[in-house]
Amino acid sequence: MRVALGIEYDGSQYHGWQRQNEAIGVQQRLEEALSQIADEPIQVICAGRTDAGVHATGQIVHFEHTKPRVERAWTLGVNTILPDDIAVKWAVPVSDDFHARFSATARRYRYIICNQSMRGAILSQGVTHIHHPLDEKSMQLAANCLLGTHDFTAFRAVQCQAHSPVRTITNIELQRFGDYLVLDVQANAFLHHMVRNIVGSLIVIGKGEQPVEWMQQLLDGKDRTKSGATAKPNGLYLVHVTYPEEHALPHTFLGPLFLPLKDF
Amino acid sequence: MRVALGIEYDGSQYHGWQRQNEAIGVQQRLEEALSQIADEPIQVICAGRTDAGVHATGQIVHFEHTKPRVERAWTLGVNTILPDDIAVKWAVPVSDDFHARFSATARRYRYIICNQSMRGAILSQGVTHIHHPLDEKSMQLAANCLLGTHDFTAFRAVQCQAHSPVRTITNIELQRFGDYLVLDVQANAFLHHMVRNIVGSLIVIGKGEQPVEWMQQLLDGKDRTKSGATAKPNGLYLVHVTYPEEHALPHTFLGPLFLPLKDF
Repeated sequence: MRVALGIEYDGSQYHGWQRQNEAIGVQQRLEEALSQIADEPIQVICAGRTDAGVHATGQIVHFEHTKPRVERAWTLGVNTILPDDIAVKWAVPVSDDFHARFSATARRYRYIICNQSMRGAILSQGVTHIHHPLDEKSMQLAANCLLGTHDFTAFRAVQCQAHSPVRTITNIELQRFGDYLVLDVQANAFLHHMVRNIVGSLIVIGKGEQPVEWMQQLLDGKDRTKSGATAKPNGLYLVHVTYPEEHALPHTFLGPLFLPLKDF
Repeated sequence: MRVALGIEYDGSQYHGWQRQNEAIGVQQRLEEALSQIADEPIQVICAGRTDAGVHATGQIVHFEHTKPRVERAWTLGVNTILPDDIAVKWAVPVSDDFHARFSATARRYRYIICNQSMRGAILSQGVTHIHHPLDEKSMQLAANCLLGTHDFTAFRAVQCQAHSPVRTITNIELQRFGDYLVLDVQANAFLHHMVRNIVGSLIVIGKGEQPVEWMQQLLDGKDRTKSGATAKPNGLYLVHVTYPEEHALPHTFLGPLFLPLKDF
């Protein structure tokens, strides 16, 4: 029997989704809790393997189990075992042709910048502090050139293992809420560090250190060494993964928290 | 020389504003950092002594120092010493007749409820989870009877040391943002546990366990034992303290975080 789960986590205490050598990953904690409820070893496959310190409100996983369980065993039951910084939001049975990674048609991330002269103290590991005032209008203008299908080599990590650097960004929007600036971006898929590299370059433009047109030059130049520094993981959230409607996964408020951004 | 500071803190790791016996309070950490920068012992007086586990985005303190310091010593300098969960947002010199507690004319708190069947994992110590669906419309109707000047004995902690139980609530509003329900309340001052006791009773009404009219009955009855259980400290934030305009304190985004509630 195959089950899909919606997962939320604060990644600040984990070395990413996957365990790395001796460091603990979110996946390990989730599999331990699921295995305890399932009374058999459970392995999960996720939609997107987030890096160390990156968070999620809409991570999706699937797994196989053999013993009958009621749905709330996978939600309420697993949540009682999980630490406070990982939670199952929903569980639904899915057909054998559902695959958390390969069935996904789009991923959506949000990146939260605390853009105030002084750092904050609330959710300090869940936002990225930039004390220099950022001009979100020029950042949005710069971001617009990324819309569509492009070779994103300029924003790809050296260690990226994807076969192709071509991805399709369908939405990219910046919005300010008081001291906080939020980037909301959706693509069919992302290269390694792609969102954080895009944010790093937009920050350079937002500070006025480069003109709006610089973004197009970076994209065309396909040279990672020319673009801005990779932005910190703190502010990054995987908020949604899209699947074909036939799988009928629940729709949830994307967040994080009470962030009132609307759906694309 | 007297200085006023705007302070933000995540109170989840502290036993309240004040130190209690061997337990560490926010005040202690702040005074240690200020004393180091001032190179003399500094004692602060705050606008509102928050309980264990309660947070603030708009706490105000004042203190006296004798050695000349530039303003950013009290902000950037102190912030480098403070732990991640406490931050100075601004510092301004004030006249000797400014007193963080006695000059204050109003206090404003926000209480954040995660109202979803499953608990969340982001900011888990900074929201209160209520899995039962809450009807915010009936909660708002019930809350309206608290507006104005009343004897708030029904919502006062047994250990409250205030001389009078009479307070004036000038604003009380509930608003939903996706899975999150936020109470925003302002009064000239609050009794001990007053916000948490009001929230506790509104939750009873929001669940449908008592009618809207119950709130008025509680207020009139002046009997603490009749009202709802004290709501958890997790979701409570001191977001603003009002002073006479002559003191010219900076205006900041109230939050917490990107919470887009407008000013009253």
